Amino acid sequence: MAFRVGVIGGGQLARMMVPPAVHLGIDIRVLAETEGSSARLAATQVGDHHDLQTVLAFARDVDVVTFDHEHVPQPVLRALVEAGVRVHPAPAALAVAQDKIVMRRRLTDLGLPVPDWAVVADPDELGAFLDAHGGRAVVKTPRGGYDGKGVRVVRAAHEADDWFAAARADDQQEGALLVEELVEFRRELAQLVARRPSGEVVAWPLVETVQRDGVCAEVIAPAPDSTGRVAELAEHIAVTVAAEVDVTGVLAVELFETVDGRLLVNELAMRPHNTGHWSIDGAVTSQFEQHLRAVLDLPLGATDVHADWSVMVNVLGGPASGALADRLPRLMAAHPEVKVHDYGKDPRPGRKVGHVTLSGGDLPDVVARARAAVTFFEG
Amino acid sequence: MAFRVGVIGGGQLARMMVPPAVHLGIDIRVLAETEGSSARLAATQVGDHHDLQTVLAFARDVDVVTFDHEHVPQPVLRALVEAGVRVHPAPAALAVAQDKIVMRRRLTDLGLPVPDWAVVADPDELGAFLDAHGGRAVVKTPRGGYDGKGVRVVRAAHEADDWFAAARADDQQEGALLVEELVEFRRELAQLVARRPSGEVVAWPLVETVQRDGVCAEVIAPAPDSTGRVAELAEHIAVTVAAEVDVTGVLAVELFETVDGRLLVNELAMRPHNTGHWSIDGAVTSQFEQHLRAVLDLPLGATDVHADWSVMVNVLGGPASGALADRLPRLMAAHPEVKVHDYGKDPRPGRKVGHVTLSGGDLPDVVARARAAVTFFEG
Repeated sequence: MAFRVGVIGGGQLARMMVPPAVHLGIDIRVLAETEGSSARLAATQVGDHHDLQTVLAFARDVDVVTFDHEHVPQPVLRALVEAGVRVHPAPAALAVAQDKIVMRRRLTDLGLPVPDWAVVADPDELGAFLDAHGGRAVVKTPRGGYDGKGVRVVRAAHEADDWFAAARADDQQEGALLVEELVEFRRELAQLVARRPSGEVVAWPLVETVQRDGVCAEVIAPAPDSTGRVAELAEHIAVTVAAEVDVTGVLAVELFETVDGRLLVNELAMRPHNTGHWSIDGAVTSQFEQHLRAVLDLPLGATDVHADWSVMVNVLGGPASGALADRLPRLMAAHPEVKVHDYGKDPRPGRKVGHVTLSGGDLPDVVARARAAVTFFEG
Repeated sequence: MAFRVGVIGGGQLARMMVPPAVHLGIDIRVLAETEGSSARLAATQVGDHHDLQTVLAFARDVDVVTFDHEHVPQPVLRALVEAGVRVHPAPAALAVAQDKIVMRRRLTDLGLPVPDWAVVADPDELGAFLDAHGGRAVVKTPRGGYDGKGVRVVRAAHEADDWFAAARADDQQEGALLVEELVEFRRELAQLVARRPSGEVVAWPLVETVQRDGVCAEVIAPAPDSTGRVAELAEHIAVTVAAEVDVTGVLAVELFETVDGRLLVNELAMRPHNTGHWSIDGAVTSQFEQHLRAVLDLPLGATDVHADWSVMVNVLGGPASGALADRLPRLMAAHPEVKVHDYGKDPRPGRKVGHVTLSGGDLPDVVARARAAVTFFEG
């Protein structure tokens, strides 16, 4: 009997789990939010992941439930486990990725390096944090943020009044916001690892990520000029989080490399992550195959790379008119060596609708060609 | 609007087109013979590919029709084209792969090297051929053979009487069989190329294939000790066939390398082929992605390889009891670097139910480990 994996959420992360599922003979089923989702080929059900009965019905026919996103409420997750469903990552681990205050507390308890942070309940407390941090800080809503949403740089105590009001109106947030020092970073990095329930952990190479407007724009694997110390520290941080928080599946740890050479944890994600898309074409085992293996508690695959450098560039927004498919002929003619990924989503400003990956031996050349390829999807 | 490809036939070749279709944003639809086919995830219809109305209905919602196998009858293919459906490869090209007598005539007309051959209508003619070729020959049914079926080594004129009787009873065969010299070959090779309707052709490296009982067992890419001359000749033969026969999509040319250093064409296939499975994990563009690009007349992808050597070993038959999935944990634990492909088919003696691929720098080591991995699926 084939292994059966149920994925909650029909976005591009679920979509990109389909190819390795096909190759490994895994029966993949997706609970999608809407008809016509990115993962529609594997969508066996359309429904609301906030509704326990919907999720329980979906879970009945699979061996394990995993996720395309972190938005399934804890009560639903815990009820699934109580009903005997295998859920990976487990609710307790996922809680650490779902709430940024919980995440900061947990990382601090583990002794891992994070930016200075505080929970602030009102503008006065925010003002005090600003006074102590040179008059600048980053305010974050504890829940629901992604791709730069729910993150705001502030320079005055009243610049987050609307979020305080919203947080007070939302039971889950308890009226509080997270505030962090504005880190002066040299660059942003990401360390991906995968862990299976029985404990095995593997790491991909540390990568550099380039963000634009809070959204991942490019990833270079491995991160250039990563000294042994930086790479070792990044892996230590990710492996520690995975083991101590009991993460299963892929764990992405977004990091700041500060101007004075420290690494600080920015964010965590417990699923395949944009910073690991390069691994589809650039590594022996992609993050999507590894996630399936990990949540099924199968032995993990090798994370060796195919080339010295792999560069992934996101397609953000897509063409001003028409579909990505319309641009494929010219892109492919100009770049036969580029791997194109079209998420099957309608173009919309700022939306992640695809990515390209290119591997090779000369980094500046690989970066230039990957960027050039993406321009065919723009304008 | 996404490109839409319709594949007739729901076997593992259609199945393995699904991953690149997902990545490229191509809407892939399969007309499968049965429920629960290997390509079931993409099967939008179950029906008989001999029935024109069934195939016409299937073709209505796609941009191009292509194939998992060569068994669609010419009248159906020609009626599709007359109805305005884009069919790739086109009926006239496919005819050359569907009938081995047509194939031998065409290759001979093109001046390409083939074994000595003749069309024989009865045991007397077969006996004459045997007398002229040292008393040994290979008899082939012109149609319907694959994986060693329809191929018989004979040493006497009456050893094919049953096939003559069957051929007389079958209108299509016109009572004739193909007979060929029994080639003394040093080894078997395969040259895969892909060609798009507008004429572009690309080639993968020449590979060596190891057959057991007429079935492909292993493939080594590239073929070891391929002198420049052999590789050039193989590519010349395949490119010539592709261009002159107007093949679109992937063309596989199976070749004998004779003990005296000649190359002779053994068989042709106009679809992704077992000898190209290594390219999924070992090349920048796999034969399955390339076939989709080619039949859509999209520019073809680079055929560069990821490693010095890639070795593919078929899983023939599969476990004596249970499913391939039952054997995955031990295989994966022993071989984290091996890529596993499970076709989602029930194990049955001799049946192709999956394959593994391994890439690396040391050929004997890569061969040994790939073979060792497959043993986990046996017994």
